[in-house]
Amino acid sequence: MKLKVKDMDISSGGPLVCVINHQDAAMLDLHVMDRIKVRKEKKTETAVVDIAQSSKFVPKGKVGVFEEVINSLKLENNNIVDIAIARKPLSIEFIKKKLDGQRLSKEEIDQIVWDIVHNKLSSVELAYFVAACYTNIMTTEETILLTKSMVRHGDVLQLNKRPIIDKHSIGGIPGNRTTLVIVPIIAAAGYFIPKTSSRSITSPAGTADTMEVLAKVTFSIKKMKEIVLKAKGCIVWGGSLNLAPADDKIIAVERPLEIDAESQLLASIMAKKHSVSSTHILIDVPVGNNTKVRNMAGALRLKKEFEKIGRRLKKRVKVLITDGTQPIGNGIGPALEARDVLWLLKRDPRRPIDLEKKCLMMCANLFGMIGIKDGYRKSLYILNSGKAYSKMVEIIKAQGGKETAAEDISIGKFSHDVLSSKSGNVKSIDNMMISRISRIAGAPADKGAGIYLCKHVGDKVRRGETLFTIYSEGRHEFEYAKDVAKQGRVFVIR
Amino acid sequence: MKLKVKDMDISSGGPLVCVINHQDAAMLDLHVMDRIKVRKEKKTETAVVDIAQSSKFVPKGKVGVFEEVINSLKLENNNIVDIAIARKPLSIEFIKKKLDGQRLSKEEIDQIVWDIVHNKLSSVELAYFVAACYTNIMTTEETILLTKSMVRHGDVLQLNKRPIIDKHSIGGIPGNRTTLVIVPIIAAAGYFIPKTSSRSITSPAGTADTMEVLAKVTFSIKKMKEIVLKAKGCIVWGGSLNLAPADDKIIAVERPLEIDAESQLLASIMAKKHSVSSTHILIDVPVGNNTKVRNMAGALRLKKEFEKIGRRLKKRVKVLITDGTQPIGNGIGPALEARDVLWLLKRDPRRPIDLEKKCLMMCANLFGMIGIKDGYRKSLYILNSGKAYSKMVEIIKAQGGKETAAEDISIGKFSHDVLSSKSGNVKSIDNMMISRISRIAGAPADKGAGIYLCKHVGDKVRRGETLFTIYSEGRHEFEYAKDVAKQGRVFVIR
Repeated sequence: MKLKVKDMDISSGGPLVCVINHQDAAMLDLHVMDRIKVRKEKKTETAVVDIAQSSKFVPKGKVGVFEEVINSLKLENNNIVDIAIARKPLSIEFIKKKLDGQRLSKEEIDQIVWDIVHNKLSSVELAYFVAACYTNIMTTEETILLTKSMVRHGDVLQLNKRPIIDKHSIGGIPGNRTTLVIVPIIAAAGYFIPKTSSRSITSPAGTADTMEVLAKVTFSIKKMKEIVLKAKGCIVWGGSLNLAPADDKIIAVERPLEIDAESQLLASIMAKKHSVSSTHILIDVPVGNNTKVRNMAGALRLKKEFEKIGRRLKKRVKVLITDGTQPIGNGIGPALEARDVLWLLKRDPRRPIDLEKKCLMMCANLFGMIGIKDGYRKSLYILNSGKAYSKMVEIIKAQGGKETAAEDISIGKFSHDVLSSKSGNVKSIDNMMISRISRIAGAPADKGAGIYLCKHVGDKVRRGETLFTIYSEGRHEFEYAKDVAKQGRVFVIR
Repeated sequence: MKLKVKDMDISSGGPLVCVINHQDAAMLDLHVMDRIKVRKEKKTETAVVDIAQSSKFVPKGKVGVFEEVINSLKLENNNIVDIAIARKPLSIEFIKKKLDGQRLSKEEIDQIVWDIVHNKLSSVELAYFVAACYTNIMTTEETILLTKSMVRHGDVLQLNKRPIIDKHSIGGIPGNRTTLVIVPIIAAAGYFIPKTSSRSITSPAGTADTMEVLAKVTFSIKKMKEIVLKAKGCIVWGGSLNLAPADDKIIAVERPLEIDAESQLLASIMAKKHSVSSTHILIDVPVGNNTKVRNMAGALRLKKEFEKIGRRLKKRVKVLITDGTQPIGNGIGPALEARDVLWLLKRDPRRPIDLEKKCLMMCANLFGMIGIKDGYRKSLYILNSGKAYSKMVEIIKAQGGKETAAEDISIGKFSHDVLSSKSGNVKSIDNMMISRISRIAGAPADKGAGIYLCKHVGDKVRRGETLFTIYSEGRHEFEYAKDVAKQGRVFVIR
């Protein structure tokens, strides 16, 4: 059937979608979410069908085309395309199989991942896959197959070196910028650590957002390899690299219900690490009320699974269960966190001691994993001698940045101190409120926005003393963040 | 935050959706599928958020509004609306609870149904609900709560009569137009049978599509009540009646994977029956390879559940397990089926005997349920005496139609006989192919399109004899249907 293209000027954000009028749909015996082949000259693309009841939206004889299809086929308004019925993706059958509680084979998982990567599944279909994995928990074997499949359907960094060190912190607590300290320490010690990090999704800053205050973070795999071969380490944004791209699409449909299918959390992290050929991986699992992992039982189960998958992938994996009850470090938000890190590396007295201790402990573990003794003292020496700082400057320069003094990092021009209304001890800090206020203040989009914590849990505080300071770059965000801070209970003091 | 309305000229087909620019979204700390309150003057509506990365799609300062929201708030382009963060629907938590394998309470199920009816859930969220019910099978108790809740959140037909008779056939086999025979027989016997039927979703004709050849089928509840009080029976389209509207929305997200959560199938049917206050309900469960219920074990389980729920709802429910291996009746498609029914009621020799026998057997069961003996003979008498036909004419007239001779029903002007390539016995007929060819020929949109079967399973056939005839109203559909019939194996002859 020949139809005339109507550019809908809409992006689906992933799936390839076309809309046809219900009369044309009836003719082709098509229903919502069926598939059609759209052909323009020699190029063909398979798309998900949506059906328009109103002729105003898509009249008979036309096909409404979403941006993803427009781009793929290089279509223009009023182009004539040929539409034919296509089979539904094979993976739909396999998703149903998993939903029915059966195990999936390598080929079936591969097909699902291929269809995800190539945008062949609608978000509803993808949601069924996530639900299937969530309720009929994947076996370790399936998780390993999923991990390998996600790696195979993406790019891979090949360094041909050994060991290649890596670390990952499972999100959920504000601050916690360990990567920016650990990478220069490990690299200064002479080991490869090709670190990819995420930008923020739900937090005030991802490691990539913070690193971006100091250097560029968006690179190709080729350029990343150059940087790592030269500086031994890097801190780049994983999102631009096409490493295990299926993962990002899965995460998108997990958000609405905030479900984390454990198998997918495991596969997601291990796939990203596998994609950069890491051999020794340290995983930080913060446990606390408002983090991803809320209790010790969950953390221990995760630890066991990570280690099992690590063995199967022939990698050394160690899992550290750490305190996730309060933010780590003082700054929350890209610029404030970057300043913390520079202070730490430059041994400035204003450096956050909690972050430093955690980083040293993690480095000690990493050194231990590759057989180096006395890792804590070694790491502390690398820090104190200024070698870590020099290495960080080298990495920053390799990533197109320049040496910056902590004082020259631009912090939001509007600031407001939130004072304690009574004297006592800080009993707890609400991670979620800290994140929320920082985000509303403008982080991570406004690099200088966020929160600077003056007190941590256990600290003594007097009435009228500053608990934390809110920073914003815009008046409007600033007022709104102040309002939210006023309403919520951020600190508990007794 | 004040934003200017951009009418997107798109309908979501249900959920209330607004799109805002990623910069505005960051400011409000909003993510995809979060909820916002949209206020225009005194009216407020809660909508699902989608986020535009491109300013071309939705620029900063604007809010892209889908038709459902436009209509609800009576918005126009460039209206200024006030946007505020809203909580996610409560039911999202309950859906997650079910996904975690827990039981839902009455209040929780009520909240989910309320949110579904009021379009508060996105299709991804609804898919999670279906998946949750599918994998963590609902208890009978939960199914009953869901049934009652779906009834409560919709309109109800109150006749204040007893008994009120009803029947339902679980779909999947072509033809099978028992309703159009059973309703006039039961009504002619003096009993109330307020039958609501569906239009086709995936089949060549729903009962409502077929009845529409003879009379109107779209009525309000009030008008339906008038018809039933006058003629004792009716055959109207359920879709226009707002009976258990949550059900239709659930079915929409089940289609992509073709999953039928059993609890939802049960709740769906029982809710529709409960909504018209039926007291005695006969359920026809055809079993066959290409039907909804594929084996006896599944049919028996369904039978048990139906009867259990019936008891709990204080209704007499009887389930008949019937042969679903081949089409019932000769005509497939609205006009061809209507002609079969008129022939049957008028005792024309061309009437389909298989359909007649099935209807008589079902009527006998219905009479038995209300304590009337010798129901088969009674039904046959009502048929043979012409009383069923007169009653059908009365119902047709009450529904705004007029008496029509079977010969005056307009059948597609293009026709093609498909001949047998060999002699033998008909071993099987592929239900799916029969449906598919009929739909492609134009059914149910083109009333006169479809298939007329000349042979059934068990019949002898000679080489060159007609197996079935394809009818179409348009040349294009006709050619395509012939092609499909040529490729597929519709009849197996040995």
